[in-house]
Amino acid sequence: MTATFSATDHLHMAHALRLAERGLYTTQPNPRVGCVIAHGDAVVGTGFHRRAGEPHAEVFALREAGERARGATAYVTLEPCAHHGRTPPCADALIAASVGRVVVAAEDTFPQVDGRGIGKLRDAGITVASGLMREAARALNVGFFSRIERGRPFVRLKLAMSLDGRTALASGESKWITGEAARADVQRWRARSSAILTGSGTVLADNPHLTVRLPDGEEFAPPLRVVLDRQLRTPAGSRVLDGSAPTLLLHGAAATCSDDRFERVERVALPTPGDALDLRTVLALLGGRGCNEVHVEAGPTLGGALFSAGLVDELLLYVAPLLLGDRARALLQLPPLADMAARWRLQVIDQRMLGADIRLRLRPG
Amino acid sequence: MTATFSATDHLHMAHALRLAERGLYTTQPNPRVGCVIAHGDAVVGTGFHRRAGEPHAEVFALREAGERARGATAYVTLEPCAHHGRTPPCADALIAASVGRVVVAAEDTFPQVDGRGIGKLRDAGITVASGLMREAARALNVGFFSRIERGRPFVRLKLAMSLDGRTALASGESKWITGEAARADVQRWRARSSAILTGSGTVLADNPHLTVRLPDGEEFAPPLRVVLDRQLRTPAGSRVLDGSAPTLLLHGAAATCSDDRFERVERVALPTPGDALDLRTVLALLGGRGCNEVHVEAGPTLGGALFSAGLVDELLLYVAPLLLGDRARALLQLPPLADMAARWRLQVIDQRMLGADIRLRLRPG
Repeated sequence: MTATFSATDHLHMAHALRLAERGLYTTQPNPRVGCVIAHGDAVVGTGFHRRAGEPHAEVFALREAGERARGATAYVTLEPCAHHGRTPPCADALIAASVGRVVVAAEDTFPQVDGRGIGKLRDAGITVASGLMREAARALNVGFFSRIERGRPFVRLKLAMSLDGRTALASGESKWITGEAARADVQRWRARSSAILTGSGTVLADNPHLTVRLPDGEEFAPPLRVVLDRQLRTPAGSRVLDGSAPTLLLHGAAATCSDDRFERVERVALPTPGDALDLRTVLALLGGRGCNEVHVEAGPTLGGALFSAGLVDELLLYVAPLLLGDRARALLQLPPLADMAARWRLQVIDQRMLGADIRLRLRPG
Repeated sequence: MTATFSATDHLHMAHALRLAERGLYTTQPNPRVGCVIAHGDAVVGTGFHRRAGEPHAEVFALREAGERARGATAYVTLEPCAHHGRTPPCADALIAASVGRVVVAAEDTFPQVDGRGIGKLRDAGITVASGLMREAARALNVGFFSRIERGRPFVRLKLAMSLDGRTALASGESKWITGEAARADVQRWRARSSAILTGSGTVLADNPHLTVRLPDGEEFAPPLRVVLDRQLRTPAGSRVLDGSAPTLLLHGAAATCSDDRFERVERVALPTPGDALDLRTVLALLGGRGCNEVHVEAGPTLGGALFSAGLVDELLLYVAPLLLGDRARALLQLPPLADMAARWRLQVIDQRMLGADIRLRLRPG
């Protein structure tokens, strides 16, 4: 059955999506969800989910609507939950408020919901239509859906390079390839991620903080810093060990450490088949811990390994209008291609200027 | 003295610029010029220069206007000529037609004009204002102004690469990195150029035609094919030797050839200081032959040499959404940089999608 939606339906759902976006940096591990309650054009309640453990979008919107929710249409960007989690089921709340109709953007494929929210509403005699602006609603929670449906986070690989595909001079010098606007933009992609992943090589070379810096007053849930460090090479005093953000160090089962340099971080030992941490295992582990979007800032080895294993879902590529020459460092280490037919194809999903730099977003095509 | 221009003036000059553009592929070595003759908003004559040896823009516009040119304003994208070339001076024609006012976009810096056209008009009692949309008018003839003012053509280096800055596999395989839309676009940049420059390495590797293919019915003046071939390595049967377009082969004075493989092309010997053809000498020679825009399609050696000598005025960079890996061939061979401060900076002047590919235009910043 294909539902048809009016212009008014589109208007309110677009509004609900904008509300949902307000939780972009704070809802993890929960999805970003917005809700609008309306009679025709007239909005009587709005809400969005801000933070795990706090009420869902529907609850805020119903509170605002009060008695006016009766007979109204509720627009929800994600199917209302039907189970008792940290909060009571939203489907029950909508039924109790006697809304007349519920319009859903994306169906929730989370096993404990998966159609049961919609079913519960229908059983209570409420008209339910779903699929309005589904694509936008799923895109907003690309990581949540990836985790629920594929058992692993959505992986976004951030790279910054010169026009000729170089990330650093032969000497390793790489600071400030891109400009201020691009670097500020990176902070937002970090902020929306559940985890920031890097390798010990990058820690050794650049000693990054891997924390989020947003303008004052902007809230975010600090992403988990994840360091792949098979041999426990991360030196004492590294910024990722400073305890300023939750940090997980994944290492090989054979590696040991006798000092206290890791006392502020969590360490998990993983098997190392083929003398490397298995990247699928790493992602499954992060998915199991509720990571939706994983932001990777790593060197050409880890980046290349993720990419050639087919584990990169999006390339976030900053291109600075510079040439560094053929002796500078390459973007990604990839196995040699036998012929052009074997090339890795991607698709540009967004391109824009950020200051003097170009930002491209690409997905495997 | 800064002239002020009305909205009507801008309207007619924009029209004249669009007319001038119609000569984009055909006027070389002459500049592209358009002319509109109007009384207030009412246009009474239009014209553009189509081909060297044929009448100038002003002549066509005056013919169309006839008696209505009297007292009208003539909008010309380039200062009218004051000298007898292959056609009589346009300044004289405008005076003879008794136009009341002439508005010029760009002053002609060609030594035989250089203000004399405007002076002649003023001496005849005609009001002349210049500088309206000058930047656009100069951009349209960027090569002409380069040749006149710098004694060398405007050099546009075309490159096609993968996202990771690679032009070919390690094996040399490079066909079809970019898609059809990008390849069709390249033909238009070739068509507007006076010359297409390559090196013997590219001839040996790819055996290109370096001719122009435009849709049926679109006219163009065939650009001169220029091959830098110090040692006369271009083999018999190469497409650039087929006589299908005017071709110039530049070689070292020491190189000799005893067979007839070059009988359909012009050969010029140049000195080879430091065992290479001097690129400044090459460009001076092309400027002396009336080349305005030179389109370079070459390998990383010649491209890198032109770029690092500061002789590339624009980079026309097609980026295909592919990854070829760090073992594939690099974009440009450039001398190693001592530090990041020495990086070659450019500025993005245009970016757009062409099919699945990205096209960037950049200029040294």
